Amino acid sequence: MRIDIISVVPNLLESPFSASILKRAIDKGLVEIHLHNLRDYTSNSYKQVDDYQFGGGAGMVLMIEPIDKCISQLKSEREYDEIIYMTPDGEQMKQGLVNTLSLKKNLIILCGHYKGVDERVREQFITKEISIGDYVLSGGELGAAVLCDSIIRLIPGVLGNETSALTDSFQDQLLAPPIYTRPAEYKGWKVPEVLTSGNFTKIEDWRDEQSYQRTKTRRPDLLDEE
Amino acid sequence: MRIDIISVVPNLLESPFSASILKRAIDKGLVEIHLHNLRDYTSNSYKQVDDYQFGGGAGMVLMIEPIDKCISQLKSEREYDEIIYMTPDGEQMKQGLVNTLSLKKNLIILCGHYKGVDERVREQFITKEISIGDYVLSGGELGAAVLCDSIIRLIPGVLGNETSALTDSFQDQLLAPPIYTRPAEYKGWKVPEVLTSGNFTKIEDWRDEQSYQRTKTRRPDLLDEE
Repeated sequence: MRIDIISVVPNLLESPFSASILKRAIDKGLVEIHLHNLRDYTSNSYKQVDDYQFGGGAGMVLMIEPIDKCISQLKSEREYDEIIYMTPDGEQMKQGLVNTLSLKKNLIILCGHYKGVDERVREQFITKEISIGDYVLSGGELGAAVLCDSIIRLIPGVLGNETSALTDSFQDQLLAPPIYTRPAEYKGWKVPEVLTSGNFTKIEDWRDEQSYQRTKTRRPDLLDEE
Repeated sequence: MRIDIISVVPNLLESPFSASILKRAIDKGLVEIHLHNLRDYTSNSYKQVDDYQFGGGAGMVLMIEPIDKCISQLKSEREYDEIIYMTPDGEQMKQGLVNTLSLKKNLIILCGHYKGVDERVREQFITKEISIGDYVLSGGELGAAVLCDSIIRLIPGVLGNETSALTDSFQDQLLAPPIYTRPAEYKGWKVPEVLTSGNFTKIEDWRDEQSYQRTKTRRPDLLDEE
């Protein structure tokens, strides 16, 4: 898989892709990440990428021309499955959408910054708009990192143990059960006995029940969706 | 405001705090970010921070002892308003929660990694569990960055123009209207005439209507919440 990320502050994205699971996935050649600085696609000498809003109002808007140039160049080099724009008014990112995107070959992710991008960019070039949640951030960069992380960890070979991702929250519309590790007792706080019983049928039943109860208490809306 | 972030891969978080708005907020002294490496709080010589799950199953779990030590030391130095754990089964992060947290003085954010943290950590030390959305990530680090960004941009003085944050999506339960910038025409694609009319009453009415229509089409659930 190849992901091209377009941003006015690509250096913001350096460390998330240089550590832990994403770094290993890149090192193993399972995914290629290309960061593009929008300022490299300006035609004016002072590398202007944003301007004031038509109609007045606070906050700068990213201009259409450099974005057009960058996307057009990428599209001339290969075919893309989706050209994604990260925006709080986009489709709400859920695990199902992530699963689907993890099967794609080439993705472009455009990050807004400041107030966002010129609406014509969205109308003309974007095939999918994604929101990571109902809150506002300084730009789309962290959203792009979140989207990449969620996608890349699903690519076969990225996680050490492939069954690990399947027991995560949301893969079966249920929250994950509580987990415990050594020591079995710490400052008087004990691990539930069943988990150290060695009876795997009982452990499985306990985990199913905990998953269900936790979902019912914390996120009853997930049970309604089934 | 001071935010302490506890992680096993703190270097993953370096660039988001070294660029753009977050960097400027730190440089101006409006917020202090302290990254803590959980491995510095281990008592064993090989700096082990995780172990296998009790009861079997894929994925490693962060142990209670180093987390206890790190949180206890921080709490001995100052009072914290919240000790937050980033987890997909936590409270869903919404703009209202962000607004509330932006008024606090000292926060700790604990990032899980791999499968998560020992449940006893959550029971004994955590005062608030937050999820940035219904999807699974490799760890809590990107969630912590998202939370910090959303909070810090609301601190007075961080954004150049303070009115900018007030016209964002979600601050009034509506999505933001479309925005446009120069040029007024690009490849035949034009800006809506009203925006270049100079009639600010009409512009305001157009924006309100666009906001409402966009919310109704894309996110009718937001209108129901009012």
